[in-house]
Amino acid sequence: MSSDLYPVSRLAAVQEATAKAGIDALLLTPGPDLRYVTGYDAKPLERLTCLVVPAAGEPYMMVPRLELPAAQASPASRLGLEFVAWDETDDPYRIAAARLGRPGTVGLADRMWAMSSLRFRDVLPGAEQVLAGGVLRELRMRKSPAEVAALREAGEAIDAVHRQVPGLLRAGRTEREVARDIAEAILAAGHDTVDFVIVASGPNGASPHHEVSDRVIQAGEPVVVDIGGQLHNGYCSDSTRTYSVGEPPADFAAYYEVLRRAQDAACAAVRPGVPCESIDAAARDLIAEAGFGDHFIHRTGHGIGIETHEEPYIVTGNAEPMEPGFAFSVEPGIYLAGRHGARIEDIVVCGESGGERLNNTSRELVIV
Amino acid sequence: MSSDLYPVSRLAAVQEATAKAGIDALLLTPGPDLRYVTGYDAKPLERLTCLVVPAAGEPYMMVPRLELPAAQASPASRLGLEFVAWDETDDPYRIAAARLGRPGTVGLADRMWAMSSLRFRDVLPGAEQVLAGGVLRELRMRKSPAEVAALREAGEAIDAVHRQVPGLLRAGRTEREVARDIAEAILAAGHDTVDFVIVASGPNGASPHHEVSDRVIQAGEPVVVDIGGQLHNGYCSDSTRTYSVGEPPADFAAYYEVLRRAQDAACAAVRPGVPCESIDAAARDLIAEAGFGDHFIHRTGHGIGIETHEEPYIVTGNAEPMEPGFAFSVEPGIYLAGRHGARIEDIVVCGESGGERLNNTSRELVIV
Repeated sequence: MSSDLYPVSRLAAVQEATAKAGIDALLLTPGPDLRYVTGYDAKPLERLTCLVVPAAGEPYMMVPRLELPAAQASPASRLGLEFVAWDETDDPYRIAAARLGRPGTVGLADRMWAMSSLRFRDVLPGAEQVLAGGVLRELRMRKSPAEVAALREAGEAIDAVHRQVPGLLRAGRTEREVARDIAEAILAAGHDTVDFVIVASGPNGASPHHEVSDRVIQAGEPVVVDIGGQLHNGYCSDSTRTYSVGEPPADFAAYYEVLRRAQDAACAAVRPGVPCESIDAAARDLIAEAGFGDHFIHRTGHGIGIETHEEPYIVTGNAEPMEPGFAFSVEPGIYLAGRHGARIEDIVVCGESGGERLNNTSRELVIV
Repeated sequence: MSSDLYPVSRLAAVQEATAKAGIDALLLTPGPDLRYVTGYDAKPLERLTCLVVPAAGEPYMMVPRLELPAAQASPASRLGLEFVAWDETDDPYRIAAARLGRPGTVGLADRMWAMSSLRFRDVLPGAEQVLAGGVLRELRMRKSPAEVAALREAGEAIDAVHRQVPGLLRAGRTEREVARDIAEAILAAGHDTVDFVIVASGPNGASPHHEVSDRVIQAGEPVVVDIGGQLHNGYCSDSTRTYSVGEPPADFAAYYEVLRRAQDAACAAVRPGVPCESIDAAARDLIAEAGFGDHFIHRTGHGIGIETHEEPYIVTGNAEPMEPGFAFSVEPGIYLAGRHGARIEDIVVCGESGGERLNNTSRELVIV
């Protein structure tokens, strides 16, 4: 794993941002926040692993004794951290609290489980709990060149899977059968995990987050295929294409073309300085003008990095101005309840003068 | 999916237990607690999905508008719940708070993310937050006959994978290559997901939670293989066997035999009424008597169900008496740092008069 992806310098930057935010310590349990700061992809377990980043002083990591070799073998070992190993009958929360003293404010990993956050509340009764995300989002949102390269690699990997989809889709197969083949292809294309496989045929395509079912795909049906996984380096892929098994209904072909133009318009609107919500509006306005406004029932996109969904969100109300290094999905959809639906999704990264699409399979309707 | 696994009657039992515990409402976000109560395997997303189970009154589920079809298609739809759909620009926490009124105590899903628990704290400033696990553990720990049958099915599935392992292990292959083949076999054996694949060769076997590496397996080396996944019905498998690639070192063969007898003794100690910690002691005492006490560095086991690790824990200090329906791992290990290690793990369910092992591949040392 490239050390550029999880640079040793990041911990100091996080510590500085923590101090600046007036937070006395970040408490980062396993999950994307911990991985971002250290490179350590620790397993989320009921046994506490927790990186403590004080605003001043030395960071350290609470580690269950039997995870110690894994922590030592992880990229976190490059950071010169102290590993505070605790034994099976210890109370790691009390050990952490004794070291922390009396912090006024602690920042919790956004995905810290309640079983940990409530224990920290109890052993640190004077500490106000806030989200570490408030500190980390500013860093995580701005991808470094190494991170953009990792997302590009993820994009190429999932594109390789989409190129195989026409060979897997045919009338008579169930969504689940197709999804199983796609899952294997996602792993074979170099992903470490399969994060989601949506194969939504006919009326199921009208439900944006339908996953798979035992429904048999019929001739003449559009099929929405939305797939993604995580590379070994932690970075995620996510791309949607809509296929048609044989000739689709005429009205479908018409709104698919509206959608294709809307997705193009949103991608073309990406450049530094424009508010995130204007990318949403670029797609939404075009879809609304064509009379399908009520059928585009979700935001246009989400940030992506070591989480499939992270900041920035491309949604009405998000006035955050785009910056170089922002990476996110552009995925408008049109959904006709009970009939069919379509979605087209690329990951786009904002560059110095415009957006770069990291997914590059055809966005024309592919009839298989 | 069998409706016996997630019976409609469970919601009323949970509501009754909530009232009895003096909690005004459970707040269950996606994860095993929500799945246990409703059968709905909701995706964990930044958008709030949350089952609200008030101690008195009608339960309902907050659902993002675009997850509504998935929620309606899920087993949760059998429960006659109201689905409260919220739109992309709504604040679902405020909507929930307005409906909840002024609860004195709310029980959070044990795995609720801090991004949700802190928002609930803010919109319900008068409510003390406790863990829903306090209510749910009593129910989840006692497996129904349908749940035991599901765990038995999971045990058979992972046993089928272990039977293939001797054909995959050989000197010259890397741990990662072997692990990839095992992962495919886990899916092919009927699991929906691969939860973990530990292939720990030679010195890596001395680290209980080592996963995989690019280390090349050498002749004469023991290899710990600890694997598990989740069936479509939600129930999990978990079984460890230790193999040797060619003749192992003589001292290894000697302590392996100690371990085998210790694991047998712990399984034989299972019966209703005995404290959980006595199962741990049954294995630990035997290992200590043989002089390896310092090399058995973890608890003997963990409960298993729709989570791989759940109550009851088989650990010193857990005096909870065994009951019929308790299901847990029995997995003592002996680890010689820098050299090699061994672990043997079966899932065991407590019956009316003793334990039943749900894993049944040979526990003799398999030399491949």
